[in-house]
Amino acid sequence: MPNQKQPNQAAEVLIQALPYIKQYSGKTIVIKYGGNAMIDETLKAAVMQDIILMRYVGINAILVHGGGPEISDAMQRMGKEPAFVGGLRVTDAETMEIVEMVLTGKTNKNIVAHLNKQGGQAVGLSGKDGNLIVAERETTKGDIGFVGRVVKINPELLHTLSAAGYIPVISSVAIGAEGESYNVNADTVAGELAAALSASKLIVMTDVEGIYQDFADKDSLISQMTVKDARQLITDGVVDKGMIPKIESCVAAIAGGVERAHIIDGRLPHALLIEVFTDQGIGTMIRR
Amino acid sequence: MPNQKQPNQAAEVLIQALPYIKQYSGKTIVIKYGGNAMIDETLKAAVMQDIILMRYVGINAILVHGGGPEISDAMQRMGKEPAFVGGLRVTDAETMEIVEMVLTGKTNKNIVAHLNKQGGQAVGLSGKDGNLIVAERETTKGDIGFVGRVVKINPELLHTLSAAGYIPVISSVAIGAEGESYNVNADTVAGELAAALSASKLIVMTDVEGIYQDFADKDSLISQMTVKDARQLITDGVVDKGMIPKIESCVAAIAGGVERAHIIDGRLPHALLIEVFTDQGIGTMIRR
Amino acid sequence: MPNQKQPNQAAEVLIQALPYIKQYSGKTIVIKYGGNAMIDETLKAAVMQDIILMRYVGINAILVHGGGPEISDAMQRMGKEPAFVGGLRVTDAETMEIVEMVLTGKTNKNIVAHLNKQGGQAVGLSGKDGNLIVAERETTKGDIGFVGRVVKINPELLHTLSAAGYIPVISSVAIGAEGESYNVNADTVAGELAAALSASKLIVMTDVEGIYQDFADKDSLISQMTVKDARQLITDGVVDKGMIPKIESCVAAIAGGVERAHIIDGRLPHALLIEVFTDQGIGTMIRR
Amino acid sequence: MPNQKQPNQAAEVLIQALPYIKQYSGKTIVIKYGGNAMIDETLKAAVMQDIILMRYVGINAILVHGGGPEISDAMQRMGKEPAFVGGLRVTDAETMEIVEMVLTGKTNKNIVAHLNKQGGQAVGLSGKDGNLIVAERETTKGDIGFVGRVVKINPELLHTLSAAGYIPVISSVAIGAEGESYNVNADTVAGELAAALSASKLIVMTDVEGIYQDFADKDSLISQMTVKDARQLITDGVVDKGMIPKIESCVAAIAGGVERAHIIDGRLPHALLIEVFTDQGIGTMIRR
Amino acid sequence: MPNQKQPNQAAEVLIQALPYIKQYSGKTIVIKYGGNAMIDETLKAAVMQDIILMRYVGINAILVHGGGPEISDAMQRMGKEPAFVGGLRVTDAETMEIVEMVLTGKTNKNIVAHLNKQGGQAVGLSGKDGNLIVAERETTKGDIGFVGRVVKINPELLHTLSAAGYIPVISSVAIGAEGESYNVNADTVAGELAAALSASKLIVMTDVEGIYQDFADKDSLISQMTVKDARQLITDGVVDKGMIPKIESCVAAIAGGVERAHIIDGRLPHALLIEVFTDQGIGTMIRR
Amino acid sequence: MPNQKQPNQAAEVLIQALPYIKQYSGKTIVIKYGGNAMIDETLKAAVMQDIILMRYVGINAILVHGGGPEISDAMQRMGKEPAFVGGLRVTDAETMEIVEMVLTGKTNKNIVAHLNKQGGQAVGLSGKDGNLIVAERETTKGDIGFVGRVVKINPELLHTLSAAGYIPVISSVAIGAEGESYNVNADTVAGELAAALSASKLIVMTDVEGIYQDFADKDSLISQMTVKDARQLITDGVVDKGMIPKIESCVAAIAGGVERAHIIDGRLPHALLIEVFTDQGIGTMIRR
Repeated sequence: MPNQKQPNQAAEVLIQALPYIKQYSGKTIVIKYGGNAMIDETLKAAVMQDIILMRYVGINAILVHGGGPEISDAMQRMGKEPAFVGGLRVTDAETMEIVEMVLTGKTNKNIVAHLNKQGGQAVGLSGKDGNLIVAERETTKGDIGFVGRVVKINPELLHTLSAAGYIPVISSVAIGAEGESYNVNADTVAGELAAALSASKLIVMTDVEGIYQDFADKDSLISQMTVKDARQLITDGVVDKGMIPKIESCVAAIAGGVERAHIIDGRLPHALLIEVFTDQGIGTMIRR
Repeated sequence: MPNQKQPNQAAEVLIQALPYIKQYSGKTIVIKYGGNAMIDETLKAAVMQDIILMRYVGINAILVHGGGPEISDAMQRMGKEPAFVGGLRVTDAETMEIVEMVLTGKTNKNIVAHLNKQGGQAVGLSGKDGNLIVAERETTKGDIGFVGRVVKINPELLHTLSAAGYIPVISSVAIGAEGESYNVNADTVAGELAAALSASKLIVMTDVEGIYQDFADKDSLISQMTVKDARQLITDGVVDKGMIPKIESCVAAIAGGVERAHIIDGRLPHALLIEVFTDQGIGTMIRR
Repeated sequence: MPNQKQPNQAAEVLIQALPYIKQYSGKTIVIKYGGNAMIDETLKAAVMQDIILMRYVGINAILVHGGGPEISDAMQRMGKEPAFVGGLRVTDAETMEIVEMVLTGKTNKNIVAHLNKQGGQAVGLSGKDGNLIVAERETTKGDIGFVGRVVKINPELLHTLSAAGYIPVISSVAIGAEGESYNVNADTVAGELAAALSASKLIVMTDVEGIYQDFADKDSLISQMTVKDARQLITDGVVDKGMIPKIESCVAAIAGGVERAHIIDGRLPHALLIEVFTDQGIGTMIRR
Repeated sequence: MPNQKQPNQAAEVLIQALPYIKQYSGKTIVIKYGGNAMIDETLKAAVMQDIILMRYVGINAILVHGGGPEISDAMQRMGKEPAFVGGLRVTDAETMEIVEMVLTGKTNKNIVAHLNKQGGQAVGLSGKDGNLIVAERETTKGDIGFVGRVVKINPELLHTLSAAGYIPVISSVAIGAEGESYNVNADTVAGELAAALSASKLIVMTDVEGIYQDFADKDSLISQMTVKDARQLITDGVVDKGMIPKIESCVAAIAGGVERAHIIDGRLPHALLIEVFTDQGIGTMIRR
Repeated sequence: MPNQKQPNQAAEVLIQALPYIKQYSGKTIVIKYGGNAMIDETLKAAVMQDIILMRYVGINAILVHGGGPEISDAMQRMGKEPAFVGGLRVTDAETMEIVEMVLTGKTNKNIVAHLNKQGGQAVGLSGKDGNLIVAERETTKGDIGFVGRVVKINPELLHTLSAAGYIPVISSVAIGAEGESYNVNADTVAGELAAALSASKLIVMTDVEGIYQDFADKDSLISQMTVKDARQLITDGVVDKGMIPKIESCVAAIAGGVERAHIIDGRLPHALLIEVFTDQGIGTMIRR
Repeated sequence: MPNQKQPNQAAEVLIQALPYIKQYSGKTIVIKYGGNAMIDETLKAAVMQDIILMRYVGINAILVHGGGPEISDAMQRMGKEPAFVGGLRVTDAETMEIVEMVLTGKTNKNIVAHLNKQGGQAVGLSGKDGNLIVAERETTKGDIGFVGRVVKINPELLHTLSAAGYIPVISSVAIGAEGESYNVNADTVAGELAAALSASKLIVMTDVEGIYQDFADKDSLISQMTVKDARQLITDGVVDKGMIPKIESCVAAIAGGVERAHIIDGRLPHALLIEVFTDQGIGTMIRR
């Protein structure tokens, strides 16, 4: 009997992925891409491979991204000082233009180029393309300019592209009734898209391990919870500020019919593959 | 007998357009959009209407654009001084990033928003999406950085979008073998795309009436000419510098199988409609 | 800036037609063709152009026609004296044969030939083809022979032909349960077809400007009215006899789900185009 | 063991038809319908059943007809005296109008009604519909008016209708370049259509048993012959005048790629079924 | 007038079959094949022809078979003694293996080969293929081993094969949750399949003329009866033991939505054709 | 930074498989299944998983099998003594029946059941189904009965099943012109099918590590060779008898256009996955 241990282990891994492949083949998974996984070149390369693998086993992977640090950086280079109100960027017309140029013209196409280089067929979009994400001015936080609230998703363009084998990559810029641009939180966009596409999963990539019962106690990681629990957590005010839109995005997705939403640690290489194709769930899973 | 003169004239115009509608319905027309028609708001609105009308009568309209002035403007805001060698922008890595942000993130989406606002279904693309325009470094003019030479067009994405009723709007940024970005002349891109798509027409919008036999003599406008004549004109060195890439684009399109290429005056409102749907040819037409 | 006034006006007209093209592209419009527009060669040519233009902008145009004067003429040449009871032609077996020969073998194919000559792809049908219009004997007016009352529309053949790009032209002859022919009022046929096809519009061409509030007062033209008003007008007995079946056809169409029905003046060249593609509504429009 | 002789015989017949059903299912058979089979009501009913049966076993049956006696009859009723030159009807404009009315408006729709009554889905066409049969003036026999020579067949409409399950019934009227009508020999039309459709069979129904070696000797019936033999027979001048266009039609069909052409005796009830579905070939078969 | 009596009679038979062809074309007929018709070579050949003819006129014919005598024969050759409890074969693991080998490996492929030899395109299946017939252990009769009770039909494979023109031939072996084999009564399988496929007809072939009111009185054959009557007959205990599963199969089919179920005499050559294509109903028909 | 070593390794394996998934997705791989991998339950389960995984990443996997030991076993149980001439089983009619029952009724359906149990959608076929493998009597080795030589592959059925997502499992029994069965070497069948399907790969599973340069020297394993080398090896007579049909099968496949043929060691668990999805080629690869 031959002794070829290494490949055998490889085979075992592939075989263990089989039930997950069966489960998600032909389904849609929306991924909110962000954090270190979008900055660190090694992590980035790993995300691209994960997405392409999903596509090859028949999963309609849809990538949504924002791009915080790059925006502030560009603003400063252009002599504008970033300002925030309640976590939202104050977005005057000039800022909106910079936001759009950075997100759609730089970050988005950079992701597209990385996917294509590794053998994917990606198409970069903003919410303007095919009127994909229609928004109106967010007015509940005072006048903070072109910050938008999603009012309608037109998902037909995504169906057309997915059916033709393309991987859509979407920047979180929306279009208004007069064709004007809106800056929308990327977590929110991901949740709305997942709901509109009746996705099987929403996966939000972040830079922490998941949601903690007690933010200060790193041992209190919650592996899964119900929507109700998630809402309670926000009400209780025990979660980190930056985590709130991510949890709200998950809640909106589940409320909109998505089966499961995950907040995972993007610092872990191939976190997406591990979440989707192994029995080791990672991060926090939110369900009905 | 009733007297309704006005509508009657309207009917006559529509009827005169019929033979052209018949001729181009189901065909592809590539339009190089640029010049005043991209700056003046009234002209811009007219171009958008023209494109949407083409789409409704079954023409697969494909829009290609560059964005010269906006790029230099953004560079200066970022403290970079534009430099040119032989008409080509010296494009170091930082400049390339600005070029891409402006073209793809601002100019492109601005056109998309205008089309959508008027009832079109536009999708903005750069040459990176679906590996649409593959380029390599242009090396014949010395080291001018990320200036690209088109080596391959992958038109499948355009077929997918056109078949689904979308209007593709393409910025003149190309992708290299390593996923890097290239700045390519938009006239050149339009000509290459027209050839790759076996378009019926290439229409290049500019800010002059057409090609003059003698650039100094405004009465010497050439209404039509052969490819051979066009090549001779360049050899003779009698055309304006800025016109050369436009003529070369037309020559490349015709050589690649396009039936007719036109250089038209974008300052004329609805110049596209007039060219395509009326018997009054405008500008200069180049044929085999 | 160039001065090319004429084409500019042409462009304006085309652009003004754009909203109407958007509205009706992909929809069905049933046209009852008749009156002077079917006799005068210039008007006829204009109608054909109008229909072909509709087809090119994606409208499923369906033409229905009768042929009164030609029938009486052929009868007299064959030694039969035309007779009418309550506006309906007394149709014995021999008359029915003449009616069918004239309508289906002459008038219908004449229209088909005109459309084809101008670049359309027309197919002439009678209600017998594909059992398109099934009728039974009209018995409410005494024994007037093979005058039919529509009992069923089988529109599948029209869907097949429209989907393949053909323009159906339909003569108002129906088929009975035993395969026998029936002479049916063409206005009635048009209304029934419009309802069965869930058309967006029914347009009835006639030789007056529209419906008058007071038939004697040419200034009393009604530009639009509700179905209820239209029914009242008939009840009040203030409309011309010949107009009654036209109004009833419109009423039946609206009752059957058609959005709008129009009675327009076929003496006006390109009345169809003006009605469909300009903002100057002509004639009388009947709505819900 | 039961004794049910009658059904058993029925089963045998059906089984004997099986190899022929296999052979022609999915293929096209063009039938020139004429003679007694178009006049005698019993024969007529039998032809309709035969055609419908063909359609049900997957054969694309296409019916072509003329209508000689009915035309002369109608002409006389209209006070025109029929005239012939070399077997061709002298066809002035008025005669052409009568020919078209009778063939397309009466004979054609009568066949359609009979097919529909028996459960078929027939669509009556003339050569004008969809520009099916394009002709020009036949000038080799002197000025005999609107007698046409086929110059082009546009078979797309027949493909559309056959694919949708309809049985096309075609009158032998053709369309000219100006939309004018031409009277074309129906045998000729059948042969040209069979060739244009790459039919498997052309079947010409006539009122004799087939082609005789010696027209005077009824025992000299030829059961099969080559195209070469058929041409020789015409050259030798030994066949009946009326048979010449039928033989020429068969020759043209075979020359155009049709596998087999048959001249059969339409006086025999169900002659079509017998020819197509039994091993008893009837009439004369012409092959390569 | 020619005298060709024989073919004329053939044509009459074909024409009499036309209404039945119209009725069943495009519909599904499930046939339980068994008895002498599966043993006698002449009868067998006739059944194959009948099935192929059905297929050619557009009927989706589905064949189900068991194979009693061959199984016992093979068992004895392998030194196993057949045993039965309440009409069901005691099926230990070894017997199940023999049953499966004989039914699926011999009887089934023998039928496939016969159909193919005569020009059909048959595909032999057992209930394991595509999980077509899922069963669980029949426990109501004590421990009789791998005798199965149908719990689910997965008909997709049959739709795929029928749509591609193949004739499915199915042996009565089912698959259990662990992939184990079950021996299921073929009559039962036929009834369940007919219901799952919403068949138009279930035809059960047997070796008697049909169902008798009084089994001892051969003159008491019932030509048709309702489901209610059929159930009463079983309750009354007046039918032959072997007939009970056949009647129950018909009852289950009708209850499951099948229009008509027939028990016919397979000893009669072409009994299938006679039942389906002639007006002489044979055997016993059960309806709602 | 988290420490989750295990899943990370899993991800690495999946990612290393990505280039192979890209390469073979949408392609056909024919697998000759046999040897210990068909006997040992653990190995068997692993093969089934490998096949299902291939199917999920878009590979059209086609399984071919023989069944040597089970046939001899069944023969002996039925009192027949197996006999061989030149490596081929002497196959009289009775033996052929046993061969077919065992291969098609037992071995084949056993594989189907295993695949289905693990979530595949398998369909078991013999060469009789859809006339998949047509053979004639092998006469070059004297009279050895129903041993067949492949004369034609009709692969349509496999295309139909693969397109619908099924995994075809094929026993090495062929059909003759009269519908008779032939026993064909399964290696040969696999090679012929691979060629007829223009497969990307043929993989032959065996019980040795591959082909040895010197059969006695286990260190002389050949990792890859050309067809020419393979032919030479057979000519030189240095390979094991049992290996000859396997090498010939590979040679025939390559000659018929298959890109690569592999002889791999089925005793190694998941040998198929390792061969297809890892960079560690195993066994011997034969190429052009």
